[in-house]
Amino acid sequence: MSFDRDDPSSTGTERPLTRRDARPAGTVVTVGGVEIGGPDIVVFAGPCAVESATQLLATARAVQAAGAHVLRAGAFKPRTSPYSFQGLKEEGLSLLAQVRAKTGLPVVTEVMDPRQVELVSQYADILQVGSRNMQNISLLEEVGKTRMPVLLKRGMSATISEYLHAAEYVLRGGNTQVMLCERGIRTFEPSTRNTLDLNAIPMLHRETHLAVLVDPSHGTGQAWMVPSLAAAAVAAGADGLLVEVHCDPARALSDGRQSLTPDAFARMMREIAAVAVAVGRALAPAAVPLASVPR
Amino acid sequence: MSFDRDDPSSTGTERPLTRRDARPAGTVVTVGGVEIGGPDIVVFAGPCAVESATQLLATARAVQAAGAHVLRAGAFKPRTSPYSFQGLKEEGLSLLAQVRAKTGLPVVTEVMDPRQVELVSQYADILQVGSRNMQNISLLEEVGKTRMPVLLKRGMSATISEYLHAAEYVLRGGNTQVMLCERGIRTFEPSTRNTLDLNAIPMLHRETHLAVLVDPSHGTGQAWMVPSLAAAAVAAGADGLLVEVHCDPARALSDGRQSLTPDAFARMMREIAAVAVAVGRALAPAAVPLASVPR
Amino acid sequence: MSFDRDDPSSTGTERPLTRRDARPAGTVVTVGGVEIGGPDIVVFAGPCAVESATQLLATARAVQAAGAHVLRAGAFKPRTSPYSFQGLKEEGLSLLAQVRAKTGLPVVTEVMDPRQVELVSQYADILQVGSRNMQNISLLEEVGKTRMPVLLKRGMSATISEYLHAAEYVLRGGNTQVMLCERGIRTFEPSTRNTLDLNAIPMLHRETHLAVLVDPSHGTGQAWMVPSLAAAAVAAGADGLLVEVHCDPARALSDGRQSLTPDAFARMMREIAAVAVAVGRALAPAAVPLASVPR
Amino acid sequence: MSFDRDDPSSTGTERPLTRRDARPAGTVVTVGGVEIGGPDIVVFAGPCAVESATQLLATARAVQAAGAHVLRAGAFKPRTSPYSFQGLKEEGLSLLAQVRAKTGLPVVTEVMDPRQVELVSQYADILQVGSRNMQNISLLEEVGKTRMPVLLKRGMSATISEYLHAAEYVLRGGNTQVMLCERGIRTFEPSTRNTLDLNAIPMLHRETHLAVLVDPSHGTGQAWMVPSLAAAAVAAGADGLLVEVHCDPARALSDGRQSLTPDAFARMMREIAAVAVAVGRALAPAAVPLASVPR
Repeated sequence: MSFDRDDPSSTGTERPLTRRDARPAGTVVTVGGVEIGGPDIVVFAGPCAVESATQLLATARAVQAAGAHVLRAGAFKPRTSPYSFQGLKEEGLSLLAQVRAKTGLPVVTEVMDPRQVELVSQYADILQVGSRNMQNISLLEEVGKTRMPVLLKRGMSATISEYLHAAEYVLRGGNTQVMLCERGIRTFEPSTRNTLDLNAIPMLHRETHLAVLVDPSHGTGQAWMVPSLAAAAVAAGADGLLVEVHCDPARALSDGRQSLTPDAFARMMREIAAVAVAVGRALAPAAVPLASVPR
Repeated sequence: MSFDRDDPSSTGTERPLTRRDARPAGTVVTVGGVEIGGPDIVVFAGPCAVESATQLLATARAVQAAGAHVLRAGAFKPRTSPYSFQGLKEEGLSLLAQVRAKTGLPVVTEVMDPRQVELVSQYADILQVGSRNMQNISLLEEVGKTRMPVLLKRGMSATISEYLHAAEYVLRGGNTQVMLCERGIRTFEPSTRNTLDLNAIPMLHRETHLAVLVDPSHGTGQAWMVPSLAAAAVAAGADGLLVEVHCDPARALSDGRQSLTPDAFARMMREIAAVAVAVGRALAPAAVPLASVPR
Repeated sequence: MSFDRDDPSSTGTERPLTRRDARPAGTVVTVGGVEIGGPDIVVFAGPCAVESATQLLATARAVQAAGAHVLRAGAFKPRTSPYSFQGLKEEGLSLLAQVRAKTGLPVVTEVMDPRQVELVSQYADILQVGSRNMQNISLLEEVGKTRMPVLLKRGMSATISEYLHAAEYVLRGGNTQVMLCERGIRTFEPSTRNTLDLNAIPMLHRETHLAVLVDPSHGTGQAWMVPSLAAAAVAAGADGLLVEVHCDPARALSDGRQSLTPDAFARMMREIAAVAVAVGRALAPAAVPLASVPR
Repeated sequence: MSFDRDDPSSTGTERPLTRRDARPAGTVVTVGGVEIGGPDIVVFAGPCAVESATQLLATARAVQAAGAHVLRAGAFKPRTSPYSFQGLKEEGLSLLAQVRAKTGLPVVTEVMDPRQVELVSQYADILQVGSRNMQNISLLEEVGKTRMPVLLKRGMSATISEYLHAAEYVLRGGNTQVMLCERGIRTFEPSTRNTLDLNAIPMLHRETHLAVLVDPSHGTGQAWMVPSLAAAAVAAGADGLLVEVHCDPARALSDGRQSLTPDAFARMMREIAAVAVAVGRALAPAAVPLASVPR
């Protein structure tokens, strides 16, 4: 683990805060009463993007009914093309807060700009730093100054070592509430959007004390593949999943091809619950309604 | 699935023999009474290479006791360097036959040269075509002329489409008893030997009727990672596993770092049995002693 | 060129501002009297990072004597590890301005944070957006609001399509002075830091009207490889080069292994001048002293 | 250079025959009076496959008129799909011999099977081992037993270390007449068939004494890109080129998209001649008519 492609001098010992033996028992992040990084498995689910109050609430109710613990949805969307839907921005944040109030589900949403960290922190329970920004140092430093839980997604072709150094930037700011998320890497294979890298799960668990989630939706880009890879991730030791669900995938403004329907998601939840038990774990109980949780 | 990097005109419909709808029920290969590609999950286990009668028998007895169905070990070894151990060759085949006679375990071993197909067929129950030879057309055609079961491993950077075209070469020769095996692909990540590609499992199941095995030993290159990725492979729908086990990994002549001890293998078998049940399957019952199986 | 790994719906026609036929004659950016993107070839050279007044001035004088047109050096350094040297920051910018005043060389330096764009613009002649920030949308939008020349480096595993969409973000802000720079991509090869992708030169020239530079220093990570790949880049049609030079590479605070000595750089300049002539081009004449250039 | 992905224990010192210091002056292979690996640059050109006497002779005459030194064309074609054109086989060899007799051009053609080495050796001047067979150990050993010049192409995702170990297999058989050929590697980029890796040129020259050729036709997959990358390869220090030319690319039975027309090839030859001079080399003089060369 001492090899770093773009910084060949780095070694594990140079990550004093993220390395495994800095916290041998592991880091547990608690959001809305749900423990992430403990023995139980958590599921973050929801649409790729906040599109409307109706879409968001319908999807949130559906994933909650199926047992999801955290609602995921993007208000700020970092799209490859400037002409693709860029998200509802602050209006999207506001819709997230409304749906959180109605359902009690904690919310994770992406922050793309260091100048937005304060704004997004007012609405979200977990700040997501996306793959494209894994090495956006200014953003890492800014979320490191907050005391908000942070979900740091792996870059599209980041080595394990680079990924952990990115997390180190956040911890060095004093924010210990960091969670990792493998989301597919770039390979030569043209039939899938990415190649989900499940090797990363045991490797990250050995190298760091941070919780490891997996996103099979981006990792494959195809909804029909998500349930088998979600089950595989749980079997390989993932602490949680990030899954795209849309109440009407065919009409999604982004990533519809990789979004599960509510029915398919509910089936997937039953399947992964069984796999969790087989590996000596369980799905976490539902989140405590947020009204009773002081922020 | 219509994109082929090195033969861009090919499409699924150009694989009349391997494509899924050519045999919607799937192809089941039966070896020593064990069905591969049916509902039950099979495990091929053993050392990387045949090293001696003692090593092979000790390892075979250990994997058999733990529930393995087929003994794997190389007599002909295609090594990167001409100065690495190249295998015991025909003497190795002879030792495999002796251990088969003593244990009743069917044997899979690699054939590297079209001129050796007849020889290896006299000793082995399954012919393995290795990753380096996935596009060795002469070898594919030669094993296609036999009626021996063939285990065709995926090339180190073969696309799914190229892999299935390679299988098509074998089937076109009239040999329908082909099994596939994902064994890790080449990526930018330096901390593991390869990146095991579990996306390939659902993708191959959709594209073809052939059984899909997974080799987490080569896929990771590190023994401590094998059990979690074996469990993940079963959860993702693999029909079987190929696992390196050595009675004394520290003294192995090749690939010791990725070989499980017999104890670790036995633990892994219990873990994957539980995962198999969780996804509605089971480990296959042990092989029928070969003495009672006509060849 | 219609395939985009992470945004599969995009096509060339969706890049109205960057696509070739939007400006068939090509975009020429003029800095300090030097034309970039015209018939002549330009060279940006200097140390990886500003380390001290002495180091910067000595290196600048050396590269200027050898014919370099623009001084490159980082004041803000986006390092993989938070514990690596992060640059002299504003002090570094100030040193750059002093050396520019003394030598007349225009300056290119990296900006990493949208909040720093205004500051860096006060010191630099060209704003560099680095590989790690190629999809830092906020930063792209912010430099797009300026009217400063922008050097946008390709991401470590960005497709050509993604790269051009990133440039489109800048142009859409109204800033047409964008230059591209291939700097090595990530592959499976462990013997070099990256693999310089010279296919990108003709491909980018076909797809866009923007100037294409090449950075063989990051592209290989090894100083001894730089001259041959610099020559290759010029032969393949590059409009310019970005080359790391340090007055004392063995004592460089970052990237010393890939920095040329002044002597090696001077030799390289003579070699590429000959190659430029062979392909019907020439090295650009030296920059007009900046004192005489209104900003 | 000590890192080998699939055989991590190997080092340069383990390649006693191929390593640079085994023959510091470099290995020169002489074919039809043409020296490959000396100061002059050689060009192997011709169609992907032998299709007919007319097609082969017309293309041979055209490439000879433009200054090519060796005729390349496949009689045995290792295609991804068994249903693609597999070559004219022995009839193709016979046509190659006829065209050689008429033009005096030496011939390079692929051998895919150890059982064909003797046959192909009767017709060809240089035996080509293709990318798919770079680690076909039996084939490497068989061509190593001959005293024929061998052109060993790099595997699609072979590391430099693996590539040189493959060459070591041939040299260890006593055959020192080996030439290398970079032909594009597999990356994440979808817009080209492969990514031509010109880093490989200086790296191979440092690591081994064998001549290094480059195949920009397979390396890019697109004829319009070939001339710029051919020029780049020469500038980077390649000892020769392998270029696909077809008298009528639109009707080629294979790889028409990447084949130059005779006119485009003649233009390319003039361009690379200029680049060769710029880097202190020259195109080799034409081959001595083979009638006067004893075999």
